[in-house]
Amino acid sequence: MSNTDHRPGARRSITGLSNPTVKSLRALRDTRLRKREGRFMAEGLRLLTDARESGLLPQVLVMAEGRDPHPLLAALEADVIAAGGEVLEVGEAVLAKITGKDNPQAVAGVFDEFDTSLARIDRDAAPIWLVAQALRDPGNLGTMLRTGDAVGAGGLILIDDCADPFSVEAVRASMGAIFTQTVARARWEEFLPWLRCGPGQLVAASLRDAVPYRGAPYRAPCFLMVGNESRGLPEEYELACDLRVTMPMRGRADSLNAAVAGAVLAYEVLAALEG
Amino acid sequence: MSNTDHRPGARRSITGLSNPTVKSLRALRDTRLRKREGRFMAEGLRLLTDARESGLLPQVLVMAEGRDPHPLLAALEADVIAAGGEVLEVGEAVLAKITGKDNPQAVAGVFDEFDTSLARIDRDAAPIWLVAQALRDPGNLGTMLRTGDAVGAGGLILIDDCADPFSVEAVRASMGAIFTQTVARARWEEFLPWLRCGPGQLVAASLRDAVPYRGAPYRAPCFLMVGNESRGLPEEYELACDLRVTMPMRGRADSLNAAVAGAVLAYEVLAALEG
Repeated sequence: MSNTDHRPGARRSITGLSNPTVKSLRALRDTRLRKREGRFMAEGLRLLTDARESGLLPQVLVMAEGRDPHPLLAALEADVIAAGGEVLEVGEAVLAKITGKDNPQAVAGVFDEFDTSLARIDRDAAPIWLVAQALRDPGNLGTMLRTGDAVGAGGLILIDDCADPFSVEAVRASMGAIFTQTVARARWEEFLPWLRCGPGQLVAASLRDAVPYRGAPYRAPCFLMVGNESRGLPEEYELACDLRVTMPMRGRADSLNAAVAGAVLAYEVLAALEG
Repeated sequence: MSNTDHRPGARRSITGLSNPTVKSLRALRDTRLRKREGRFMAEGLRLLTDARESGLLPQVLVMAEGRDPHPLLAALEADVIAAGGEVLEVGEAVLAKITGKDNPQAVAGVFDEFDTSLARIDRDAAPIWLVAQALRDPGNLGTMLRTGDAVGAGGLILIDDCADPFSVEAVRASMGAIFTQTVARARWEEFLPWLRCGPGQLVAASLRDAVPYRGAPYRAPCFLMVGNESRGLPEEYELACDLRVTMPMRGRADSLNAAVAGAVLAYEVLAALEG
């Protein structure tokens, strides 16, 4: 994707819906096109302020012409310009096209994708790491990031084919945690050897040869793994775990929503590790 | 909505997309039209089998002509016919229109909406009840039903303007719990006096004058309340609670996804009540 019309440190106004910049920003809502661009979009002043407070500024900040002033937005604009980024002021129709919303107060920022190699994970940096295998729902993925932030996890490791962590839906559901949690992606064949090269307890919720999740012998760094929404974890993956735990199921169902299961376990591990 | 072409206990074939029955079934995917019909759609053989095992049969069962045979489907068909319901065999295009999916193995059932008055709640029937206030996301709503089933809750009470519990999204996320959990809807002004007419501890996650959620003095029947996804609970509602509890927040965020918060609390209450 070309950045030929990108002018660093500039404030620019766009009104035409067919402008190439508008098309390129609009493409960030489509998973396939987004991946090709290597960039992602985060929406809302709150999310962008979270990013800024984490030391991350958008390359491009998009907002409506004549938008109501707001001190946090003014600070963000100034920082983006100072960092050589671009502030785009667009008409309402253009804003609606880019953000997919009919909200003239909408604001969006475009960021470079983060590096998601396993090498980015410093396992000693946090007592809890979340691991998701073949998680298909971007809302679940973002919710896991949000939960990870809440329990003081270091990040989320995505195993096998997961939803796109930089999709608009995942970023939105993360409520800013996409900027504070480390995200890594790996195949199982890559993840397991990496895990075994250092300390790390791999834990999964399971019905196989499992102990009650409360009072189980968790230890840091604890890697909490949840499986695909429909199929759960492959047997081979469960058997490779150091600890299999089971949660009470008092009703007809035999499983929880993946993000819910991860959260209930993560809070249990947090309590166990903090004693 | 007319049932004039409804023949009890009948097996019928429909091929035309403009057939009034097709239109009326298609309407169940639209919240406003669905409410007017007073019926809802549940999709998938697993969900319909859950319903059947809970003693609930669809009025109308929809499936593709020439669908692969399946013993559970055959049992369901026989029960629907025996109960005076209707089995519709439709062409692929009609099925896709009704279910919104391009899956020729799809099967869907149409049920009458359940009564959702507060009077349906028998508070002594379960130790835990979930309560959601102004919950806007049907996926969160369905996930709460699913969690309620898992912790042995009696049901979910929806306060103020919540998402439609009978929407396709909520029913799907409930994973069958829509058939096992009691759902009630009430305004706050109606709910609170009802609650105070009998035993019941009202608990909310809160930052106001709250005690740690672990080890808090929960008692049955425990009504666990979560608030709107963006605004949380109104202050007045929090102050009316018998117990306000707080969960650790180790990161930047000050809240969890509503369905996640409800689940972490519900599992804590379950452990506390079962000692």
